[in-house]
Amino acid sequence: MYQSASIGLVSISDRASSGVYEDKGLPALREWLAAALHNPLEFVERLIPDEQPVIEATLKELAQRCCLVLTTGGTGPAPRDVTPEATLAVADKVLPGFGEQMRAVSLKYVPTAILSRQVGVVRGACLILNLPGQPKAIKETLDGVFAAVPYGIDLVGGPYLETREEVVKAFRPKSAVRPPAAS
Amino acid sequence: MYQSASIGLVSISDRASSGVYEDKGLPALREWLAAALHNPLEFVERLIPDEQPVIEATLKELAQRCCLVLTTGGTGPAPRDVTPEATLAVADKVLPGFGEQMRAVSLKYVPTAILSRQVGVVRGACLILNLPGQPKAIKETLDGVFAAVPYGIDLVGGPYLETREEVVKAFRPKSAVRPPAAS
Amino acid sequence: MYQSASIGLVSISDRASSGVYEDKGLPALREWLAAALHNPLEFVERLIPDEQPVIEATLKELAQRCCLVLTTGGTGPAPRDVTPEATLAVADKVLPGFGEQMRAVSLKYVPTAILSRQVGVVRGACLILNLPGQPKAIKETLDGVFAAVPYGIDLVGGPYLETREEVVKAFRPKSAVRPPAAS
Repeated sequence: MYQSASIGLVSISDRASSGVYEDKGLPALREWLAAALHNPLEFVERLIPDEQPVIEATLKELAQRCCLVLTTGGTGPAPRDVTPEATLAVADKVLPGFGEQMRAVSLKYVPTAILSRQVGVVRGACLILNLPGQPKAIKETLDGVFAAVPYGIDLVGGPYLETREEVVKAFRPKSAVRPPAAS
Repeated sequence: MYQSASIGLVSISDRASSGVYEDKGLPALREWLAAALHNPLEFVERLIPDEQPVIEATLKELAQRCCLVLTTGGTGPAPRDVTPEATLAVADKVLPGFGEQMRAVSLKYVPTAILSRQVGVVRGACLILNLPGQPKAIKETLDGVFAAVPYGIDLVGGPYLETREEVVKAFRPKSAVRPPAAS
Repeated sequence: MYQSASIGLVSISDRASSGVYEDKGLPALREWLAAALHNPLEFVERLIPDEQPVIEATLKELAQRCCLVLTTGGTGPAPRDVTPEATLAVADKVLPGFGEQMRAVSLKYVPTAILSRQVGVVRGACLILNLPGQPKAIKETLDGVFAAVPYGIDLVGGPYLETREEVVKAFRPKSAVRPPAAS
């Protein structure tokens, strides 16, 4: 009934990737998506350090296989935070609304959301979004912006994502049609 | 009494420009402006495909003749959507507040407004704004941001635009003076 | 008790710097900061024209000595307004949330806030923010965004700023620790 979808999850942290502490980003992303989507999902997960070339290579690899890549971590103003730089470096198009709206959502919870440099971009047929590092902030952000993600993936040629309305209600304009392959 | 003004209107759509369907962007732009402004207006209209070089050339030509150029269409994330790229390519200055606020206005109506990549820029003595493609969204956006447009045009050296307050009330700081030529 | 801090204040205006009128930007910045912070402050002040190379050189010099540099003036769409261009030219990282939120704060007061091109950036261990030109707007903007500034300065390696809560309440995540040197 539902199209299957591959989703890339990338946790970016020097300390978590070297085992100094346990990564909590990947489980938070996985749980939110599994609860939100009807589609059968294949998750492709990576836990990597805050190294721009490594992040860029990871995003390039995953964008070839996935319709959506979510990153967590590395979006602050500190010198080691380079996730936005890496994401912009591999972007075909930048979608400034995602950065704006993700910060606006987080600002309802913490004034320091203003410091986040999160971006959303398109690479080929893949949408890439930078999420915050904390599991609580990941959930708040996805709750706040995911309604627009399925239609964004339609527009770049990805699978037809369908959400569980009790978590989030995907919005598509009336002109958007459910593809025959999805029925 | 009122200074005359030339305004460029550019509808950007592969399908409308090739006659596959009727363009509704230019009439929507023209009607809103005619209702909103006291000034005698000359509209310079173009209906062109989603080709970045064509859009850039059109914007360059119109910016020489007009104090304001409004585009409609081509601002989404799809591969053929290149209006923001073309607009940024001909910009002297980017005014990020227009993109932010146009998306914020549209977000009150549809969550997918986050996907829009609309920008506002200055080229020479001309303000260029990307508007959405749908007539309803064009009106919502102009209702939401036009109050700042006349003063923006003052600052880049254009004619003194005066609005009908029942449509939109132009805002100028108290220090702004109505030029003698306009009285 | 409190760490001392050097803060750069830069008023950018052709007319004020040439003596055509009195600069009101530097006193407005100084007063707000002195009222808001417990830390002993050294202000490094500059009054310069709207010349991009002069602004860039001033920002580079002050960023070496200061944890925070606030500019006032030169952020509009007019041809002589080049403060954002100069600020971006010396930036290591851009923090788009500051531009977005400063405009959102000012939009509550005047619709023409949309025309402001203010940016916030990091250069080395210094945070640089462009503020509006009018004393009233300077205060409104700092009231609206300063809560995030002390933690932003922590993250780039600057001194531990402590605010007077009756003016503004600095926000830091629970994981942030007051450094031993500050106690």
